[in-house]
Amino acid sequence: MKKIDLELLLEECLSEGKKVIKDGNVADYIPELKNVNKENIGIHLYTLDNEEYSASNEEFTFSMQSVVKIVLFALALMDNELDRVLSKVGVKPSADPFNSIVKLEETEDHKPLNPFINAGAIASTSLIAADDYQGKFDRVIALLEKLFDRESIEIDEKVFISESTTGDTNRALAYFMKSRGILDKEEDVEELLSIYFKSCSILASTRDLSKLGAVLANKGKAPWSGEQIIPERINQIVCAVMTTCGLYDYSGEFAVIVGMPAKSGVGGGIVCVSHNNMGIGVSSPALDSHGNSIAGIEMLRVLSNKLDISIF
Amino acid sequence: MKKIDLELLLEECLSEGKKVIKDGNVADYIPELKNVNKENIGIHLYTLDNEEYSASNEEFTFSMQSVVKIVLFALALMDNELDRVLSKVGVKPSADPFNSIVKLEETEDHKPLNPFINAGAIASTSLIAADDYQGKFDRVIALLEKLFDRESIEIDEKVFISESTTGDTNRALAYFMKSRGILDKEEDVEELLSIYFKSCSILASTRDLSKLGAVLANKGKAPWSGEQIIPERINQIVCAVMTTCGLYDYSGEFAVIVGMPAKSGVGGGIVCVSHNNMGIGVSSPALDSHGNSIAGIEMLRVLSNKLDISIF
Amino acid sequence: MKKIDLELLLEECLSEGKKVIKDGNVADYIPELKNVNKENIGIHLYTLDNEEYSASNEEFTFSMQSVVKIVLFALALMDNELDRVLSKVGVKPSADPFNSIVKLEETEDHKPLNPFINAGAIASTSLIAADDYQGKFDRVIALLEKLFDRESIEIDEKVFISESTTGDTNRALAYFMKSRGILDKEEDVEELLSIYFKSCSILASTRDLSKLGAVLANKGKAPWSGEQIIPERINQIVCAVMTTCGLYDYSGEFAVIVGMPAKSGVGGGIVCVSHNNMGIGVSSPALDSHGNSIAGIEMLRVLSNKLDISIF
Amino acid sequence: MKKIDLELLLEECLSEGKKVIKDGNVADYIPELKNVNKENIGIHLYTLDNEEYSASNEEFTFSMQSVVKIVLFALALMDNELDRVLSKVGVKPSADPFNSIVKLEETEDHKPLNPFINAGAIASTSLIAADDYQGKFDRVIALLEKLFDRESIEIDEKVFISESTTGDTNRALAYFMKSRGILDKEEDVEELLSIYFKSCSILASTRDLSKLGAVLANKGKAPWSGEQIIPERINQIVCAVMTTCGLYDYSGEFAVIVGMPAKSGVGGGIVCVSHNNMGIGVSSPALDSHGNSIAGIEMLRVLSNKLDISIF
Repeated sequence: MKKIDLELLLEECLSEGKKVIKDGNVADYIPELKNVNKENIGIHLYTLDNEEYSASNEEFTFSMQSVVKIVLFALALMDNELDRVLSKVGVKPSADPFNSIVKLEETEDHKPLNPFINAGAIASTSLIAADDYQGKFDRVIALLEKLFDRESIEIDEKVFISESTTGDTNRALAYFMKSRGILDKEEDVEELLSIYFKSCSILASTRDLSKLGAVLANKGKAPWSGEQIIPERINQIVCAVMTTCGLYDYSGEFAVIVGMPAKSGVGGGIVCVSHNNMGIGVSSPALDSHGNSIAGIEMLRVLSNKLDISIF
Repeated sequence: MKKIDLELLLEECLSEGKKVIKDGNVADYIPELKNVNKENIGIHLYTLDNEEYSASNEEFTFSMQSVVKIVLFALALMDNELDRVLSKVGVKPSADPFNSIVKLEETEDHKPLNPFINAGAIASTSLIAADDYQGKFDRVIALLEKLFDRESIEIDEKVFISESTTGDTNRALAYFMKSRGILDKEEDVEELLSIYFKSCSILASTRDLSKLGAVLANKGKAPWSGEQIIPERINQIVCAVMTTCGLYDYSGEFAVIVGMPAKSGVGGGIVCVSHNNMGIGVSSPALDSHGNSIAGIEMLRVLSNKLDISIF
Repeated sequence: MKKIDLELLLEECLSEGKKVIKDGNVADYIPELKNVNKENIGIHLYTLDNEEYSASNEEFTFSMQSVVKIVLFALALMDNELDRVLSKVGVKPSADPFNSIVKLEETEDHKPLNPFINAGAIASTSLIAADDYQGKFDRVIALLEKLFDRESIEIDEKVFISESTTGDTNRALAYFMKSRGILDKEEDVEELLSIYFKSCSILASTRDLSKLGAVLANKGKAPWSGEQIIPERINQIVCAVMTTCGLYDYSGEFAVIVGMPAKSGVGGGIVCVSHNNMGIGVSSPALDSHGNSIAGIEMLRVLSNKLDISIF
Repeated sequence: MKKIDLELLLEECLSEGKKVIKDGNVADYIPELKNVNKENIGIHLYTLDNEEYSASNEEFTFSMQSVVKIVLFALALMDNELDRVLSKVGVKPSADPFNSIVKLEETEDHKPLNPFINAGAIASTSLIAADDYQGKFDRVIALLEKLFDRESIEIDEKVFISESTTGDTNRALAYFMKSRGILDKEEDVEELLSIYFKSCSILASTRDLSKLGAVLANKGKAPWSGEQIIPERINQIVCAVMTTCGLYDYSGEFAVIVGMPAKSGVGGGIVCVSHNNMGIGVSSPALDSHGNSIAGIEMLRVLSNKLDISIF
């Protein structure tokens, strides 16, 4: 990483990001997501020596959406043998959109290509060990409290209800997986999806994402406490899959342009990992055609170029 | 139609049909369907001058399964403007299996290719006009009582329960259609599928199918009463779609080999229409790889060749 | 067929057809095809008792394009055991466009779905028995001379050259089939395609198509001479496949709307078969989105409705 | 990288690799590739301080096959603006096999998903700037002479002829791309493919691949001479695409299991990049179902784990 005035650099990122907001659109397939301030934009760095840098138009939070898929996948890996997880969800990049059902039917084993498309995240959720569905969610919350280093986690109830009432594509994905044995016969699809939708509705700030990213950048260990939150090998798997699959069907381009493990969500957030260096959280609600924050990617591009922190 | 001793011919059909039973398999994806006598085989003709001819190993009934899709589609056409029906379900043959979801995603308008794949039949069911879901089913029963010329219609409850508990692919199809607006936002998928599964579980005999076929062969008019049960134009549409789409992805081959409008079901029944001539019902539970009764098709092939009644 | 003043009816067909020309577009993917008079429109009937009726804006000819696929398929069937033909080309309707390559890769046996998509017609051409490629073409010409009842057949050289220089999709289809063993290892793709392109470039009039249709309507026998030009069983197969596959991915709709065996070409021509009744040739160069003559289909629709000659 | 006795480690890699050879199959779709010693196995490291370590059953060379796609892509990037390259070939991972044509038709822009599937490599070849086709090949050779640090490069003539005579899938890909404008109208497909097949037939050793890998690991600069062979930004792009797309549809799993930029070929070779550390060449001809050297991957897995050199 080049020596550079980080405060100034973040202002430059912000300024470049603002320029492209107009080219994106706020997610509308979950109606409630439309009710955000399109001008919101922020970036936050959390370094492994616990320094923080940030820039934003104002303080704001956003629903994690697909960013939470990292947590669901990590829990699935923590609760099961790797082979069992890989028998239910692949780690293959997909050139199809995140909510596509085609590959579930066309591939021989009918398993979701990877844990970061919707089908794969639903499969991950089903693999989280708990006595009941509420128990699964409690574990999501408990892990996020550690990763965000916070005492409580909030849900955007309106977003949750909105996702739930418009989540028929996800229902189709879940029932299809159930019909093919990826989800168990006993799985209660509505209950399972309820946990999934609730997880997607968890509120986060760019600071939260940067701390989550810092754990991933530190081999699963919290820089602020030294606690091994995610086992090292699982941390590595998660970062590998983030690199090949984290930005939906834009992951290949992102590797070329930014070159770091990352995971985006249609709420506008992106978490990004600079190994042995820092975690980065960005957010801005206007999305490109792939469903990624358009200003978020631009800020990461500028940051990666200026600091020369691509892993490639 | 060639002059021929029909009794003798039907015995020949039966004998040829029996030879191929061993090459087929009884449907197993609905568990209850497995519990049938694989050796069952029958053929029944009902001519437009109300003569009947039949041959079989013994008396038996079977669940209509996809044969009922004719009735669901006819009701959809009777209850709606043609354009409205065609906006929700196409009339395109499909080279994909009957329960495929791929084309729902890949086609631009996301509507089922035709009313005789599962998605299309579910869409047809949603188009039947009634105050509530039970009302839809009452209309199916009422139409079948006329077409079968019977006072009561029975359901195979075990099959119904079996379909319902294993119908997750159909749930996936229905939720996907709901997510794309083919089914209305207000549609209750479980209620709708319940009517669909119940319709598939209706019991019929080869005689029942031959009478249904005789109505279709007679421009929608019952040969036994003269009643116009299905409007003439709708009858024509149904027969056209049976010809291009009635035997799933085997429809093209069937046109070459048999050459008549027909509709098969995984319960083993096939209804076949010889225009201005007669209706034909065949049944035998062992299926070929497309889901069609293997002996049923063989009997229809022999019959069509010997009587020279292909429409082509 | 209803008694009706046919001359008057054909004028009505023409008038209805003219109204929809503006909604279509002349084919542009073969550049030379653009150089036609978009206002050309004609219909010609040839009855089995050798009466003729016609209406048109003026005399014109057009390249047969896909209409010639009937002849290529008939020759393939005349020169090979049916099973051999069916091992190289299916008889399954396709919901994909006529020049699609997707199904060649995705289906298990990699054979073209049917003889009326481009890949299938190329496979048919390869099955025509002859000492060399010119010999294949001579047989196409010889059969067409009989079907058109003419002493010579002409090619539109400009169209041929245009097809050849822009035929890279067809080259892709042919090489793909060769790679999968549908075409033999020894097949010379350029030579084979040259015969195929030349066949597509054969010039015809609506009268020619009506006579070809009359043979098909008469079980393969020329009404004018009594000669059995196409064997009866092959004639039946060809008509069956025309019904399920003749209008590309519009075949299902055409069965509902017109209801007769037919084959269209992007040159604007359509041949249509009214069994035991007459052959029909229509032509008009503006095409709908499926590649079928938009006015041609409209004329056939009016004709079929007024004469009540749908086979369904 | 852990301190470890590298000689011993390579012997362990070799020994683990040998165990899995029996589970793979030598490529047979290019007939000449079958004529190799299935027991061949080797690994070679070339560090950035110019130390070398190796282990193998015997000295052997192999045709580069898809490993050469790195060079074709690098040349395309060196000879064109990045945007021009990206308009002809994407950088998206593909879940389809390396010779699949489906996505070329199904994606909106019809461009190959990435430069490491066959279609993408053919498109890369067409982008190499030269006066004629021989000139393109001369540039491939010239670049490889630098990357391998050798004075001459050899071709396996038998493999070249074998590829050429059985390359019909590649012809299909090329003509399809030409039909969609990815290749220019003026492109001579046979000439272009000849260069492509010749490039695939270039012979290499594991030492050659390790030196190529060392250049990539050193930001494009030869460790032995300090020459900047590949511009730094292009080197970074190539390594990014190797990570997401280098092992065909196994790239996602490889990232999880090995975690380094790599590129495999059906000749059995794999080049692998440990940034700022070393280049790695492995080879063994038996392939897994994805077309990757089964023992090669196993050796890289052991090496990566023991040295802890995954980038994730």
